[in-house]
Amino acid sequence: MLSHVPGPIDLARLQEVLDGPWAEVRDAHRDGLDARFLPVYGETGDQARERISRLLTELPVEMGIASAFPTEYGGRSDVGGSIVACEMLAQVDLSLMVKAGVQWGLFGGAVLALGTRRHHDAHLRDIVSAKTLGCFAMTETGHGSDVQQLRTTCTYDPQTQTFDLHTPHEAARKDYIGNAARDGRMAVVFAQLNTQGRGYGVHAWLVPIRDAQGNPMPGVTIGDAGPKAGLLGVDNGRLSFDHVRVPRDMLLDRYGQVAQDGTYSSPIENDSRRFFTMLGTLVRGRVSVGGAASAATKSALTIAVRYGDVRRQFDRPDSEREVLLNDYLAHQRKLLPALATTYALTFAQAELVAALNEVQGGDGPPDEHRQRELESRAAGLKAAQTWHATRTIQMCREACGGAGYLAENRLPSLKADTDVFTTFEGDNTVLLQLVAKGLLTGYRDEFGSLDGWGRASFVAEQVREMVLERTAARSLIQRLISAVPGRDEEIAVTDRGWQLKVFEDREDHLLEGAIRRLRNGAAAKKDHPFDIFNDVQDHVLTVAAAHIDRVTLEAFVAGIENTTDPAVRALLSRVCDLYALSVIEANKGWLLEHGRLTPARSKAITAVVNGLLKELRPHLRTLVDGFAIPDSWLHCAILREESGRQETMAAHDAAADPQAIPA
Amino acid sequence: MLSHVPGPIDLARLQEVLDGPWAEVRDAHRDGLDARFLPVYGETGDQARERISRLLTELPVEMGIASAFPTEYGGRSDVGGSIVACEMLAQVDLSLMVKAGVQWGLFGGAVLALGTRRHHDAHLRDIVSAKTLGCFAMTETGHGSDVQQLRTTCTYDPQTQTFDLHTPHEAARKDYIGNAARDGRMAVVFAQLNTQGRGYGVHAWLVPIRDAQGNPMPGVTIGDAGPKAGLLGVDNGRLSFDHVRVPRDMLLDRYGQVAQDGTYSSPIENDSRRFFTMLGTLVRGRVSVGGAASAATKSALTIAVRYGDVRRQFDRPDSEREVLLNDYLAHQRKLLPALATTYALTFAQAELVAALNEVQGGDGPPDEHRQRELESRAAGLKAAQTWHATRTIQMCREACGGAGYLAENRLPSLKADTDVFTTFEGDNTVLLQLVAKGLLTGYRDEFGSLDGWGRASFVAEQVREMVLERTAARSLIQRLISAVPGRDEEIAVTDRGWQLKVFEDREDHLLEGAIRRLRNGAAAKKDHPFDIFNDVQDHVLTVAAAHIDRVTLEAFVAGIENTTDPAVRALLSRVCDLYALSVIEANKGWLLEHGRLTPARSKAITAVVNGLLKELRPHLRTLVDGFAIPDSWLHCAILREESGRQETMAAHDAAADPQAIPA
Repeated sequence: MLSHVPGPIDLARLQEVLDGPWAEVRDAHRDGLDARFLPVYGETGDQARERISRLLTELPVEMGIASAFPTEYGGRSDVGGSIVACEMLAQVDLSLMVKAGVQWGLFGGAVLALGTRRHHDAHLRDIVSAKTLGCFAMTETGHGSDVQQLRTTCTYDPQTQTFDLHTPHEAARKDYIGNAARDGRMAVVFAQLNTQGRGYGVHAWLVPIRDAQGNPMPGVTIGDAGPKAGLLGVDNGRLSFDHVRVPRDMLLDRYGQVAQDGTYSSPIENDSRRFFTMLGTLVRGRVSVGGAASAATKSALTIAVRYGDVRRQFDRPDSEREVLLNDYLAHQRKLLPALATTYALTFAQAELVAALNEVQGGDGPPDEHRQRELESRAAGLKAAQTWHATRTIQMCREACGGAGYLAENRLPSLKADTDVFTTFEGDNTVLLQLVAKGLLTGYRDEFGSLDGWGRASFVAEQVREMVLERTAARSLIQRLISAVPGRDEEIAVTDRGWQLKVFEDREDHLLEGAIRRLRNGAAAKKDHPFDIFNDVQDHVLTVAAAHIDRVTLEAFVAGIENTTDPAVRALLSRVCDLYALSVIEANKGWLLEHGRLTPARSKAITAVVNGLLKELRPHLRTLVDGFAIPDSWLHCAILREESGRQETMAAHDAAADPQAIPA
Repeated sequence: MLSHVPGPIDLARLQEVLDGPWAEVRDAHRDGLDARFLPVYGETGDQARERISRLLTELPVEMGIASAFPTEYGGRSDVGGSIVACEMLAQVDLSLMVKAGVQWGLFGGAVLALGTRRHHDAHLRDIVSAKTLGCFAMTETGHGSDVQQLRTTCTYDPQTQTFDLHTPHEAARKDYIGNAARDGRMAVVFAQLNTQGRGYGVHAWLVPIRDAQGNPMPGVTIGDAGPKAGLLGVDNGRLSFDHVRVPRDMLLDRYGQVAQDGTYSSPIENDSRRFFTMLGTLVRGRVSVGGAASAATKSALTIAVRYGDVRRQFDRPDSEREVLLNDYLAHQRKLLPALATTYALTFAQAELVAALNEVQGGDGPPDEHRQRELESRAAGLKAAQTWHATRTIQMCREACGGAGYLAENRLPSLKADTDVFTTFEGDNTVLLQLVAKGLLTGYRDEFGSLDGWGRASFVAEQVREMVLERTAARSLIQRLISAVPGRDEEIAVTDRGWQLKVFEDREDHLLEGAIRRLRNGAAAKKDHPFDIFNDVQDHVLTVAAAHIDRVTLEAFVAGIENTTDPAVRALLSRVCDLYALSVIEANKGWLLEHGRLTPARSKAITAVVNGLLKELRPHLRTLVDGFAIPDSWLHCAILREESGRQETMAAHDAAADPQAIPA
């Protein structure tokens, strides 16, 4: 063990580091979201929808949720602030966060990103003020992951100068569409654009779906996706169009225009490239969902850690009182590595939001390289954060035993509401593949096209190199890695340079292996092109996971580097050790197979991890308090009640007639 | 690869093997549970409770759910049949299964096991017929895992010849009690028995909690545990007793009697031993929950596999149609190992049910050795099956994408309803500790008492040896292991003997290591007795997990040995390979650390697993069809609709004007 964490920690300093540059947005929400916005347990679906719908219009947008819009339409041109606002809403009520994300992120964001001045002037102000509620109608029953293959058509008719929007069959029906079943007046509808007898790929139109009385517009059929696992307050619905006439100027035409006579033009010639450029502008959704997932994870961890700090079970041989749950090694083994990973992802998310703000916050079009890098990073961190949320909230539920199953203790809704995050805004497995593809693109001449494998093949450069350039503390990281002596055995497993090197080596080696296997496959399986990629799919997904691990660790290291308070820095450094060594421990099979770890060193890591748990145990509560979630937001009965129950019981036990106490 | 699976498989033969000896109980449920019993999606809590309450009384008990009771009270003295009935109910509606489990398993089972003739004659007939609905009031707010420390008191007063049942404070309130909030008329209440100024530990009383009009009895306060994550149809409640007078003869006195004058007597002198003997009679609950968890897992896997067999996404370079989800390696990597584990656990559960039936099915008291072994096995398999259910149903939900999040597709309720299984009827972590303790008991003289560490220390013998004796195909297994040559490299990783040896070696080595560490700890940490055990808790839990893995693999091997149909046998053998190698792959870090695998062999296993996936892909559908879950029971919209949608879309695509298809 290198050094112990000095105590006590100044909580305000820790919070400052975790809150990051948009601290004022966080504080505005902490102050501004009162009891009215807290979740209600045990509602019916209708009650939840009614309540969330009302809260959406009552939400003070000036706190940040609409801040990505230009000032002239009621925003603040602050993209980062809008993401942070989503994270804060996610700690209050995930239905409200998703409903808000649909309205201002997806729907409003699409009008802003894909529309042009006339759409903005006509609609953005009412969208920002929530006067016009809308939907983002992309996903179809038959196509969710592969949205390039949507089957809804929108065909231009020069005679009437309108488009004919049509759902040819049930698989082409828009499905799972938030805001559709109850509230949406308009929808950004994605469909295949046809004009002059030719298709130009997927474009988007702004289409009214309900009239002022809330009745479906002619030709529009609105269905209800019905009860869901969670997010009861979000009215997901289904939209079908029966030859609906859409005026020509309702095409959101930033990336593709249709003239009166039906002539198509676009600044981007290739249909596929154009489509993915359009999609790319919507990267904010993924960044929001990843951030929201981590925010919910923090709520769950706060509940489980605080409960485990007062809940006791089983006699302790050296004490009158029973043992606190948090004093059990097995409990620490559940909570602390998950908490360390949450810290790591917090820094990675902060770096991502800063990059998003920089790339998309400017006036001009974003730099294409940086935009691609951003998309890859957003995809990877969305997958990492949402899977981490699913696992961790589940673990926290179990760590609270039967109490964790009761709605009044919040964990059931945290679990149910976030569950869909792993598959919406991009299925995680598909997203990992996208990340891997970015990493492999630089090599694709060696094994042929990456087509037919989800996602664009036009990503120009090897993303990894760009990411390496970007990492905030790249020079520090390089220095730490360079300082590692040649023989691993000579250096402690808590050496940051060694940890960084292991993460980097793992990614590099996995990537090289994937390239080699793809190259061999391309030669051997010419007649079975599908098999070339499919046979190495598991390997390729591992490359992506290793990449995300490295990016996350480097962000954590950069975050520590920027921390000035010595005690907080020391604490974060131990948490970072725990994160790095937990990942190494989880992957020790691979590392041993490839000679990256000796058996002795591998065993030593388990002991060091257990030592870190012991060292961090006194700081468990501090680590969750650093998230600064207002007490009332946790909205959890056991946190209010358990401590008092334990004290009453202890007093009773002490006062009881010793004769009456069972043997 | 040793051999390929011959096709086609005769489904009836496969079903026969999986259905096992209580096939007629399974068939009776498949035939007898009509649409009326299927879950209703989107109900309110009240609606669900009302419906399940009604169905409980309409459930034809003659199908098997009450068959554990003696014939004279309406049962069939068939313990195994009642467990299998639970498994079948779990595939129809988990609320109904849990409600039935409370009524006939926990409540009725406690009256049967802990009561004597006069309780049986007075109550069992009405319990079997569901005329008397009841609760099992053991868990308290403050004590769920450590029920030996319950705080409810029941003090005998010889003057009135009644007991005084009392809840001294809120932590002593009975909590999470099924059937309490709405329906229960009586409860088996567990409390500390005090008489003549002394405590004798936890005993159980049969206590009326509601009168004929459904109002709480005097002194009884009934609360509602409120909305939960799932199991909406089960009315979990809270019971408090304010000096409630309980007649002397309502003590369930099989294991402890109080004479009129208050003199206590019992066939078992030691209070702790007596209590765990009482608990041991209730082992059926854990066996039922484990079986129900696997049954629900089978429903989820059937849905995900069948969906993945019709659902397509992304173009396939060598075909007009898009790729079936089940053709992706990543999808197979999710579904097939989980399916193989489900098969393995099916055989392990079948062996456990047979053992339960044998040990508890006789007239006399069960053999103590065998009873202890049964408890250990039940605890371990309950933990293994419920964690497997939680992970697998989650995976199936994600494998169905957004559709998996809609209630109409069943997966949300399967997930939410089974979620509590990992922590009720014994928290899984506590259960693993119990298993480990059994394994360590033979050695405890070397490191002192196992007290203060959950669960009894009286378990007499090393459970492992008993389990080894019991395993159905022990001699076959010994033969297979003996045939393994000394040098591992000479034998294929699909050699069953080698696989068995790896599992056995891992358990032995982990156990020896735990003993060594405990012994050293006992010497070094005399002043910190809690630390002696706590510092190795993670290691000890791993011992238990390795033990359960071995027991499970051996049950699978025995099951194959008993299979006569050659094609089914060959198929099961490949599934068993996949199970064994998946476990080995998951633990390769440990195996490499300890020289049980060479790096080359470890890498080879990954390749062999991928080969098995390819080989089993054509049998995916067969493997879930073998579970023989009636189509209507799956109650899943996408299974009814997706295939038709895909065909309609394909027809549309084929008929479409090629000009109009986007580039």
